[in-house]
Amino acid sequence: MSTQQVAERVTAEVYAEVQQFYAEHMQLLDGGVVDAWAETFTEDATFAVPTLEEPTRGREELRRTLRRTTQELAAAQEQRRHWHGMVAVFPNDDGSLRVRCYALVFATRREQQPVLHRVCVCEDVLVREGGRLLVKSRKVTRDDLP
Amino acid sequence: MSTQQVAERVTAEVYAEVQQFYAEHMQLLDGGVVDAWAETFTEDATFAVPTLEEPTRGREELRRTLRRTTQELAAAQEQRRHWHGMVAVFPNDDGSLRVRCYALVFATRREQQPVLHRVCVCEDVLVREGGRLLVKSRKVTRDDLP
Amino acid sequence: MSTQQVAERVTAEVYAEVQQFYAEHMQLLDGGVVDAWAETFTEDATFAVPTLEEPTRGREELRRTLRRTTQELAAAQEQRRHWHGMVAVFPNDDGSLRVRCYALVFATRREQQPVLHRVCVCEDVLVREGGRLLVKSRKVTRDDLP
Repeated sequence: MSTQQVAERVTAEVYAEVQQFYAEHMQLLDGGVVDAWAETFTEDATFAVPTLEEPTRGREELRRTLRRTTQELAAAQEQRRHWHGMVAVFPNDDGSLRVRCYALVFATRREQQPVLHRVCVCEDVLVREGGRLLVKSRKVTRDDLP
Repeated sequence: MSTQQVAERVTAEVYAEVQQFYAEHMQLLDGGVVDAWAETFTEDATFAVPTLEEPTRGREELRRTLRRTTQELAAAQEQRRHWHGMVAVFPNDDGSLRVRCYALVFATRREQQPVLHRVCVCEDVLVREGGRLLVKSRKVTRDDLP
Repeated sequence: MSTQQVAERVTAEVYAEVQQFYAEHMQLLDGGVVDAWAETFTEDATFAVPTLEEPTRGREELRRTLRRTTQELAAAQEQRRHWHGMVAVFPNDDGSLRVRCYALVFATRREQQPVLHRVCVCEDVLVREGGRLLVKSRKVTRDDLP
């Protein structure tokens, strides 16, 4: 039996909570709801993507990034949709959650066919603050980039 | 803290029930199982899409619509698959459920590559009748249409 | 009321367990983690696909198949991602689970746009051995093939 197989799992209650968290989190992102989206991260959250040398750090920088992206997409009349799937959730000893999942990004321009824009893997650490789950760190890799 | 963040959530039991409901509901739709699919709506259900001025109303009209679509797709040797994802479920005071989720439609023709046909947002009100969840109202928007 | 609607459902605990199982199972598959992936099947598992006359049988043959596929994809610098969705789970009388779900395969080559490779339906029987879920039998159909 491999070590992957004996890893501790989370309860159904926590698993559903994580799924609902991502659903709301992505809808805020794609809706350009800047402040509420930033509040789904911890104040000191890090967000690493392969196209930036340094991770984005903290809510203020996350807000700035999403505000800019939202304006660019609106100007291009493009709607993005982020999907998480194949969500594997593991409990850490300190009560935080370790998530590894797949992430798709779809892009649709007005009057055009939708496009599969990106296929990614997303690794999150989620923590609980004031009863809510928040992203403490996120690392995204893209299947098209090394 | 935004109001989105303090909204009440459903239990894991209800969240799993909604996921299983959509799984069966979409498999009936894509399988062209007309009667059983219509029975996943309330008798007086409404189903609004951006390409129709008025919502489809009631099981009889839903049956008629699906019967026609199923025949057209069979004639074209095209298989559609509807996927719900990023499913956010909130309880209403009257016991009904409010769902906002993403919906994809894939289309595959015999011997051809599959195509991402539509990217949509689906807003449902689900109610419980005789122990089962049913769609009372559905509103679908498409990312490619205003 | 159709018979589909009165079928027994699994608990939220089991539903979450199945979702987490598939998440890990697919990540092992797409990561080419041959041994751990083979261990998510029973020793005598069968895996039927439309392009093979006979199902693949047993862990040894599954390992051999995944080892070969992993090498071919690495040589082509192609990353595949398998997604399960619309997962309907039903309990059998003998304690096993009957799953019918949709399956997508995405394919991404280095520096290229991702591609929707396959749209499939997957029918599994899952059994519990030593506390873990395992695939006992799998039948995959492809929407592009008869």
